[in-house]
Amino acid sequence: VTRVFAPAAAPPSVVLTREESHHLARVLRASVGDAVIVFNGKGREWGGRIATASASATVVDLVGTREPLREPGVRVVLGVALLKGDQMDAVVRDATALGVSAIQPLTTAHVALPDEARRARSIERWERVAIAAAKQCGRAVVPAIHPMAPIAAAMSASACEATVMCVEPSTGGEGSVAAVPRVGSALVLVGPEGGWSSDEVAHATAAGARMIALGPRTLRAELAPAVALSALWTVWGWP
Amino acid sequence: VTRVFAPAAAPPSVVLTREESHHLARVLRASVGDAVIVFNGKGREWGGRIATASASATVVDLVGTREPLREPGVRVVLGVALLKGDQMDAVVRDATALGVSAIQPLTTAHVALPDEARRARSIERWERVAIAAAKQCGRAVVPAIHPMAPIAAAMSASACEATVMCVEPSTGGEGSVAAVPRVGSALVLVGPEGGWSSDEVAHATAAGARMIALGPRTLRAELAPAVALSALWTVWGWP
Repeated sequence: VTRVFAPAAAPPSVVLTREESHHLARVLRASVGDAVIVFNGKGREWGGRIATASASATVVDLVGTREPLREPGVRVVLGVALLKGDQMDAVVRDATALGVSAIQPLTTAHVALPDEARRARSIERWERVAIAAAKQCGRAVVPAIHPMAPIAAAMSASACEATVMCVEPSTGGEGSVAAVPRVGSALVLVGPEGGWSSDEVAHATAAGARMIALGPRTLRAELAPAVALSALWTVWGWP
Repeated sequence: VTRVFAPAAAPPSVVLTREESHHLARVLRASVGDAVIVFNGKGREWGGRIATASASATVVDLVGTREPLREPGVRVVLGVALLKGDQMDAVVRDATALGVSAIQPLTTAHVALPDEARRARSIERWERVAIAAAKQCGRAVVPAIHPMAPIAAAMSASACEATVMCVEPSTGGEGSVAAVPRVGSALVLVGPEGGWSSDEVAHATAAGARMIALGPRTLRAELAPAVALSALWTVWGWP
C-alpha cells in the first residue's frame, strides 16, 4: 500500500500538498477509492482512501488510525560533517531507515559553510530525501534536519545526554562501541572524508564525548554513519 | 601513499598488470622513484618504489615487507541475493571495507540466474570493485567472488561453521543479533528486494541457520548487508 506524507493530517480527511498530489495522481496513477496509508511525520498514521484524485489537491479520507512502527528507545541525533554532492542524500536516506530522530549537518575544520542560498536549498532537499526514506522504510516519523552548524556549536547546543564520536582507529584513545552505555538520547558524530582535525577530537574529548573506532579499515564517509548506527543499535538493542 | 594491487608480487620486484600500470602512469602520473604500497590481495604487503614507469608494464621494486592491516577473527562469507544494476557494486565495495573473506552471489526464488556471458562479466566487474575497495579501505586481502549459485546449493557447499540469515521482522521466529555466538566462520545470508520466499526461510531453518532481524524498518537491499555485517562485528568484536 502506498504511503503518503501529510504533515497536517487530521480526521476526517486531509488535502494533500501539491507535491504528494502530483506523485499520487500522475506518477502512481491512483484513482478515487484506492487505499493508502497516511502518516504525519511526527509518529501518527492512518488508513486512508482517496476521495478526490487531482494532480494539485488530492483529498484523502482518513478511515481509522493505525499502529505506527515502534520508534527506537534512544533518541539519536546524527551529527554528520557535510559531504559532497549526493553523498549527503545517501546519509540522510540511510540514517532515516536506521531510526535517527534528527540529522545535524556539521561544518568542520575540513568542510566550510556554504553560502546562505545554498544552505537553504540543501536543507530542503534533505527534508525531501528524509520524507521519501520514511515512506520506503515504513516509519511514521520523519527525522528533523537541523540547520548547519560548526561542530563546537552543535555540541554545546545539543540537549542529548551523551555524545559519541566516531574516529579513525589511528586517533588513539578510542574505546569499544560495545562499552557505550545505553542512554535516553545521544549525539552521534561522524566525520568528513579525511577525518576530524586534532582540535575537534580534543574539543570533543574535553566536552565529555566518548570516542569509538569501528575496525581498523578506512570507511567511506558516506558509509560510516550507517555502520556507526548499526553498531550502536546492536549495543543498545534494535530498534 | 598509493596502494597498488599485484597478485604475483614477490621480492625483489614486480611487473604490474596493464590495468594497474595504466592507472599509475597515466591517471595518477606517477614517476620513477615514487613510493607506493604493493599488496597481493592474499594478505601480504610491501613498501615499493617505481623502477620503470610505463602505461603498459610499470616495474616496482619491493623495498621491504609491511605489517598488513589485521584481518577479522571470523571468516565471513556474505551470501547476497543478486541485486539490479550497480547496487551489487555497492554491496561488494561496502562488504570489502567491512572485512568479509568472500562474497557468494545468490540466485533465489525472486531472482533468476542470468545467462553465462552475463554471469562472467558480472563476476569480473565485482572482482575489480573488490580490488578498488581493498585499495581504499587499506586491506591487504581482496575478498573472493564466488560463482553465482542457488541459495540451497550455496548453503550445502558452504564450509562455514554457522549460517546467519537476515529476515524481515514480520517473518517471525527471528532472534536478536546480540545472541549470535562467535564462531570461526559464518555464512551470512542477505535477501533480495522483496525478501526471501517462505520456502527459502524454511529450508534455511531446517538446515540450522539462525534467523535474525535488524529492527522493524524495511532496509533497502543495498544497505542491508552493511547493516548486518556491522551488527555482527559489534557482537563478535570489531574488526
